Amino acid sequence: MSDRPPITQPGLDQALRSAARAATALATAEPATRASWLRAIADELDAHSDELVALAQEETRLPQARLAGEVKRTTFQLRLTADAVEEGSWLEVAIDHADPDWPTGPRPDLRRVLRALGPVLVVAASNFPFAFSVAGGDTASALGAGCPVVLKVHPGHPRLSDRTGELVLAALAEAGAPAGTFALISSEEDAQAALRDPRIKAGAFTGSIRGGRALFDIAAGRPDPVPFYGELGSVNPVFVLPSALRRQSETLSGFVGSYTLGVGQFCTKPGVLFAPRSQGMLDELAELVGGVAPARPLNDRIAQGFTGRLAELSELWQPVREGSHGEDGLTPSLFATTIDEALNDLDGLFEEAFGPASVVVGYDDPAELVALARRLPGQLTATVHGDEDDPVAPELLGVLAAHAGRVIWNGWPTGVSVTWAMQHGGGWPATTASVHTSVGPTALRRFVAPVAFQDVPEALLPAAVRDSNPLGIWQRIDGKLTPPA
Amino acid sequence: MSDRPPITQPGLDQALRSAARAATALATAEPATRASWLRAIADELDAHSDELVALAQEETRLPQARLAGEVKRTTFQLRLTADAVEEGSWLEVAIDHADPDWPTGPRPDLRRVLRALGPVLVVAASNFPFAFSVAGGDTASALGAGCPVVLKVHPGHPRLSDRTGELVLAALAEAGAPAGTFALISSEEDAQAALRDPRIKAGAFTGSIRGGRALFDIAAGRPDPVPFYGELGSVNPVFVLPSALRRQSETLSGFVGSYTLGVGQFCTKPGVLFAPRSQGMLDELAELVGGVAPARPLNDRIAQGFTGRLAELSELWQPVREGSHGEDGLTPSLFATTIDEALNDLDGLFEEAFGPASVVVGYDDPAELVALARRLPGQLTATVHGDEDDPVAPELLGVLAAHAGRVIWNGWPTGVSVTWAMQHGGGWPATTASVHTSVGPTALRRFVAPVAFQDVPEALLPAAVRDSNPLGIWQRIDGKLTPPA
Repeated sequence: MSDRPPITQPGLDQALRSAARAATALATAEPATRASWLRAIADELDAHSDELVALAQEETRLPQARLAGEVKRTTFQLRLTADAVEEGSWLEVAIDHADPDWPTGPRPDLRRVLRALGPVLVVAASNFPFAFSVAGGDTASALGAGCPVVLKVHPGHPRLSDRTGELVLAALAEAGAPAGTFALISSEEDAQAALRDPRIKAGAFTGSIRGGRALFDIAAGRPDPVPFYGELGSVNPVFVLPSALRRQSETLSGFVGSYTLGVGQFCTKPGVLFAPRSQGMLDELAELVGGVAPARPLNDRIAQGFTGRLAELSELWQPVREGSHGEDGLTPSLFATTIDEALNDLDGLFEEAFGPASVVVGYDDPAELVALARRLPGQLTATVHGDEDDPVAPELLGVLAAHAGRVIWNGWPTGVSVTWAMQHGGGWPATTASVHTSVGPTALRRFVAPVAFQDVPEALLPAAVRDSNPLGIWQRIDGKLTPPA
Repeated sequence: MSDRPPITQPGLDQALRSAARAATALATAEPATRASWLRAIADELDAHSDELVALAQEETRLPQARLAGEVKRTTFQLRLTADAVEEGSWLEVAIDHADPDWPTGPRPDLRRVLRALGPVLVVAASNFPFAFSVAGGDTASALGAGCPVVLKVHPGHPRLSDRTGELVLAALAEAGAPAGTFALISSEEDAQAALRDPRIKAGAFTGSIRGGRALFDIAAGRPDPVPFYGELGSVNPVFVLPSALRRQSETLSGFVGSYTLGVGQFCTKPGVLFAPRSQGMLDELAELVGGVAPARPLNDRIAQGFTGRLAELSELWQPVREGSHGEDGLTPSLFATTIDEALNDLDGLFEEAFGPASVVVGYDDPAELVALARRLPGQLTATVHGDEDDPVAPELLGVLAAHAGRVIWNGWPTGVSVTWAMQHGGGWPATTASVHTSVGPTALRRFVAPVAFQDVPEALLPAAVRDSNPLGIWQRIDGKLTPPA
């Protein structure tokens, strides 16, 4: 960044003051209005996609095609959120008309709707410089819900962040959003101070367990605790059942492709593969891994962290193939162990390695997998490869569904579709808030709280809960979900 | 309690072990099955209502009619929760079929549903020995969601708690629920130990700010933090606009009736009334308050705490009418101040007094109310009395809706209807989790987390997300909310 502070960064105090001032206008703006803001941001980013991708290439070393695809995904996410905001069922409107004969005593007229929490601190990630950064999913869902956003940029892509921020601000201004709807901040200290500030009503974060835990502790330790939605770490275990061995080559190459994709820098990277013990399989894997071309990690700090983690992995497990770090970047590493050895250090097995490394755990008896799955910490994903009638499949899937946000059958966890049914979350340490998601339209639910109106005259009610239903949205009327007329 | 430990209390370790063992069976039981358990509990309590009410009268000093009504409310709540569990829209099922042309790249088949979190610690309250105790709303929604419950009884009604627990256990056993579905514990130490235990996946609490904060800090401070839903303290301010003065006598008697109801021991008791400054009004209030008969508080500890709080109130504000504490119980107290004085000690004004006391704050200019409302801490309720066309009404209601879980027009906050549109919650310190409610069917949402299934064959999917929709519930199919066929 240049020495001159960019116009996107008004300074922390100004950012918080403006956000607090904008909060009511955002919260009470009609859903269609807020949807138009999200679409304006999407249009602006699409119009500048080439410029943004070029900037991102310089700062993140990620390939052009991947980045162009990520811009598309990001603007799609903004538009899908806009559609959901307008559709309105996420507001969970319930209208219970007065009922003198209600079993617990005369019921007043009650109308419930979800309202925006207020200004949200969003902390951007490094590995998705668009989809989980300045105009990413957290920003889309907070703005869509009606919350001003104060966004802490990631130091890995400062110029891209600033340029994206400029485009977001221009789009918002052009679309008529109030000043204070969006601002960037850039230091870790400012992010912590923001999260301590009573004007900030929630936090969202994607990053490391250590960083996320520190911010979670600040949010929970406030005199007035606020929700903090952190997406932290996950090893995304894959369980290969004996019935999958008929497709052994396809399975193994799928696995190597998934864990080395994007230099292993995905939060959904499969970091552990459980498979029937077999030297032949390890030999085949060694060959596959050896064929993966070197690729450059996001930045030197990540390369350094990964090198340190590799040293730990080498001490814990048997190397199958040791990667290298040269001019052209990293080549992947693979380790192996047995389920008996792994049970002696499950903490070590379930600690994420951010980069192209994974561990193959050989087992003899599929029943061991179920026992081990019960001890899994929270995961973003868990994957099973096998046949539908494999005797261990039903129980294993059931256990995994209680430990992971997404359970995958005969596929790979990398690749997170942006759609209504997506769940990107899970128990600790995958996230700090297992009851929510950070991807998909239901991510809106993180930034709203219910409010009920009792006997309030129609003219004084928010539009969403009026009998006349001017927003044309779903309402639960006297207990029954009712589509707009 | 007798010296012999009651059969409802197997000891903490046994309770946790059994709950953990029952968790999968509960989580995977069909909604209709879990609904039948809730109805069985309701039937059993109704069948023993007289006995329970008699026990409660001995232990809580509350009048017979109130207690009988509370049993009815409690069993209604269990049955309403059962109905909601079966209706199934709360599972938020979303089915997105595979789509090779999805804008962000080929979409796999994805199916999302909410799953039970696992064993829940519920900490019972003293002031509602049925509705917020052993078989109260937290128990109903946790069991309905599919979570085993370990319930810490309130020391204010130990025999009633144990008897209620016996009936709950008998009903669950008779209805075929697994062992470990429900257990009581009784010490504060056990409650804290349970909340620290990795087998407990969430906490729910109704009680004091101090007690709730201590438990919240334990839940948030765990190596694996879990959600903690505490309902703590609220002063439930009432704003009387000048336009309401035409109905002055009705308003004032309504206020006195509400804040002295149940010896002022409701969490929704109006503890502060803002009204146009008027000596005549204070005189009228003094007379109304003087006419309220003495009534006995729940127990001596509460009486003692209230006496201490009264001394603080007397130092802060002008007494309008000072109550007494005699053989027959407490008579109510009322204090007065002006908005200017109140602004010097808003913390003092917004601190709850648990018992029959309230503060009248005189104002000169209605615009002052809006400014003050912006500084309100989180509240369970906020109430406005006035005419629909009062110029200050729209802005005041808007501000209050951002600070309170329920906004009431020309009514009183005491009396919480159990119905879909109820919201019983609010920002800190009204609750520790503003995005949820503890009353009404949507309270289920606290104890479930989303899980998505990717490309999982129909036969291995949970019933809720199958195309054949065997549960006959609402599903969002390819983005569209769809009723059961």
